[in-house]
Amino acid sequence: MPNIAAESLDRLRTRTSAKWALFPADVLPLPVAEMDFPLAEPVAAALHDAVRRSDTGYAASSLPQAEAFASFAETRFGWIVDPARVTSTADVSMGIVEALRQATKPGDGVIITPPIYPPFFDLAPEASARIVEVPLSGGIGDGWSLDLDGIDAAFAAGARAMVLCNPHNPVGLVHSVETLRQLAEIAARHNATIVSDEIHGALSYGELPYVPFLTVSDAAREHGVAVTSASKAFNLAGLKCALIVTASERGDALRAAMPYEVEWRTSIFGQIASIAAFRDGGEWLDGVRGTLDENRRLLATLLAEQLPGTGYRIPDATYLAWLDLGALGWGDRPAERALDVAKVALTPGVDFGAEVGRGHARLNFACSPDLLREAVARIAAAR
Amino acid sequence: MPNIAAESLDRLRTRTSAKWALFPADVLPLPVAEMDFPLAEPVAAALHDAVRRSDTGYAASSLPQAEAFASFAETRFGWIVDPARVTSTADVSMGIVEALRQATKPGDGVIITPPIYPPFFDLAPEASARIVEVPLSGGIGDGWSLDLDGIDAAFAAGARAMVLCNPHNPVGLVHSVETLRQLAEIAARHNATIVSDEIHGALSYGELPYVPFLTVSDAAREHGVAVTSASKAFNLAGLKCALIVTASERGDALRAAMPYEVEWRTSIFGQIASIAAFRDGGEWLDGVRGTLDENRRLLATLLAEQLPGTGYRIPDATYLAWLDLGALGWGDRPAERALDVAKVALTPGVDFGAEVGRGHARLNFACSPDLLREAVARIAAAR
Ligand SMILES: Cc1ncc(COP(=O)(O)O)c(C=O)c1O
Ligand SMILES: Cc1ncc(COP(=O)(O)O)c(C=O)c1O
Repeated sequence: MPNIAAESLDRLRTRTSAKWALFPADVLPLPVAEMDFPLAEPVAAALHDAVRRSDTGYAASSLPQAEAFASFAETRFGWIVDPARVTSTADVSMGIVEALRQATKPGDGVIITPPIYPPFFDLAPEASARIVEVPLSGGIGDGWSLDLDGIDAAFAAGARAMVLCNPHNPVGLVHSVETLRQLAEIAARHNATIVSDEIHGALSYGELPYVPFLTVSDAAREHGVAVTSASKAFNLAGLKCALIVTASERGDALRAAMPYEVEWRTSIFGQIASIAAFRDGGEWLDGVRGTLDENRRLLATLLAEQLPGTGYRIPDATYLAWLDLGALGWGDRPAERALDVAKVALTPGVDFGAEVGRGHARLNFACSPDLLREAVARIAAAR
Repeated sequence: MPNIAAESLDRLRTRTSAKWALFPADVLPLPVAEMDFPLAEPVAAALHDAVRRSDTGYAASSLPQAEAFASFAETRFGWIVDPARVTSTADVSMGIVEALRQATKPGDGVIITPPIYPPFFDLAPEASARIVEVPLSGGIGDGWSLDLDGIDAAFAAGARAMVLCNPHNPVGLVHSVETLRQLAEIAARHNATIVSDEIHGALSYGELPYVPFLTVSDAAREHGVAVTSASKAFNLAGLKCALIVTASERGDALRAAMPYEVEWRTSIFGQIASIAAFRDGGEWLDGVRGTLDENRRLLATLLAEQLPGTGYRIPDATYLAWLDLGALGWGDRPAERALDVAKVALTPGVDFGAEVGRGHARLNFACSPDLLREAVARIAAAR
């Protein structure tokens, strides 16, 4: 399948979404996790059809998107999902919050693993729970991994749930089967819940394929809840359809205890687009993965040539690059200078964890190679 | 402006939304609050454009929809809305829950006024609050009104908030300025919060125009939060964009205290459709109101001819008819027999209040006159 090319800057600037609307025209926007590719043709066709049908009422049920996802998950990941064990809602963040509301009591600890997708710091508090940080082990040099001993200790100290990022944003880490099995054992030992955010699952590059948490063991099925969506892989974040998946009676009970309204929050256009994406978007997705695969390597080359000393580990998944820009000498928040002087918008590293994010920034490479080149050149010129 | 005609049954049956997907083909579906009209042309055009732009990322801000709404609200209702005092979220129910989370502490009482839109029974519990029922006064004969003394007493007994339905679903009641002013005074006396659901505001028929709560007095602005959307008037419920509006420092503080993520839950297609609807949908809306105006009267004629004894008060707003079907002798839940025997789906009255809803059902007349005729004829034939 041919790679999918990003749209032209002129066309991208007509978009009203956050990535393209939040910055002035002289800035290259590489923060918010949206992609610069055109919609998959089957998704666009399904949406045009829905407009023509005036099909803008309430999404009737989770089942159609659950069925489409189950067949996608089986084909892509060998993950057997029971569509009856899926509840859809508007987005992954809401799914995580609703799972945490059921899995914790007010004040309970919820483990997250910085550097981590910034809203994770807010989701547990939204569910009246309390954040317990257990930073990833390792680093850019040798790669990251979950600190399983630290997680075990945090559960022993009273944490009741963990939000797992699988694959991990921002570092692009794919957790191994072995790690996930051990994590499930730990959760089982403490009778805790693992809420596994798998929104980036379909964006792994293949050397180390993404492993769905609910496939690794009975303990994982018993103590896990997966939350996923077509939204990252198919660039549908604004359409609002995510899936909460369980695989045990314990998981089902947690899902069933959620308020009835949670499911009604699914957008019908999110549903329609997700079904088309899961069913007929595979070829497009592989084309996008091809482009992203080239970009993740291109970025390594560009950094080596123009910004030597930058810490960058080619991610195994996601279109996000976690950069240690300490060598630039731009202080704790290099993204500020990148924006002000280089006119390149990155996400500040400290948003992903005050300690681990110092001197770092996250760059979104779901763009054209030219835009990536220009972004690195601008940063290099601003030194 | 010409009236807008409903789409043909054949076309409607291609919709996948709840109204048309949840019942078999031999049933006429008149429950879920969706309309059978084609989308307003400017809305359809804006959505097609968004698909062509691949504009499916995150909604960037509440401001564009707030500005479009402010100009719609001023033109239609003389309501001056400050766009900076508007936060959008996915839907009205979520807006109400988030407002209640801020306005109450766990276990606090929240007043609702049955017969009432069924999810209102669930929204306060979702916010960890407790329902306090103060039924409407009056009835089909002389019309309904808020039981202001009962509300005052409920606040005196400790309730901290009320969810006002303005206009009121299912009875189609438009509250008068005088009533709303008194309600605001009562709330002020008890330092309580009125969350005013104004989703049906644009669907009043003009004899008694809808009055936005935040326009009636300083006390209303101080103690009120309005939640509204283009979704009912323009049939966009599945697209997920609602507006939380405040008009005082107290209201602003309540809105500002909501989690950051609440705003990010707005769907970009909901945003795009709402902007088009508020800006350019006025003519279509008036055409729809013309059709609904005829239908609400036609229903009175049909019932008088074919189902004499049915209690029905022509609503002043909404496309919903609250029917006392006691005369049919079909027991507490006449909607069940209507579905099983007449093959007409109505919403069971008891869903709107176990006591006040007995023997009642709600009928959605946002359909073609022919469908309405056929529905009444089927119920009459099933006696
Ligand atoms: C790990 C992770 N989870 C969740 C989200 C957001 O998902 P949603 O928009 O469905 O809440 C993102 C967005 O980038 C993400 O990277
Ligand atoms: C009074 C009232 N509020 C809220 C809603 C639902 O609004 P939303 O879908 O935006 O939550 C309805 C739907 O019929 C309604 O009648």
